[in-house]
Amino acid sequence: MTYTVEVKIMPLKNLLDPQGKAVMGGLQNLGINNVADVRVGKHIDLQIDADSEQAAKEIAEEAAKKLLANAVMEMYEINVNQITPNP
Amino acid sequence: MTYTVEVKIMPLKNLLDPQGKAVMGGLQNLGINNVADVRVGKHIDLQIDADSEQAAKEIAEEAAKKLLANAVMEMYEINVNQITPNP
Repeated sequence: MTYTVEVKIMPLKNLLDPQGKAVMGGLQNLGINNVADVRVGKHIDLQIDADSEQAAKEIAEEAAKKLLANAVMEMYEINVNQITPNP
Repeated sequence: MTYTVEVKIMPLKNLLDPQGKAVMGGLQNLGINNVADVRVGKHIDLQIDADSEQAAKEIAEEAAKKLLANAVMEMYEINVNQITPNP
């Protein structure tokens, strides 16, 4: 089975997010003033071949820990949210 | 009211995603071979002050169109997913 796994990677809450601050400045320059805070992270979609949802999640977890996220500065969230049966 | 709005920005499906290809190469180097495809996008959390969920969504939509996403290369998805009442 092929699973679509979404990995969301965000800067840790207690760390500064300079990219978010830059986006907020840009929004204010555009006259959009209702935005109180912006945080910018990554969204990674993985297509994983695995036997079960649990196995797909474990592979994504390994990928996130080893490559995708930097645990010192970032947190990640994994969602196995769609199942595509192989033909 | 303050709304937490998630904006997900991904490269369009029919475009190459060199960052995703690089991540896939990295995963294979780590011995993670079950991943068939990777696409890398951005995930932006906005805290928006607005009168209603609909108004918050419209502000996020304007921000996505004008600043966050490049419509030529990227698509965006907006989720208003949490409401924090002001004290």
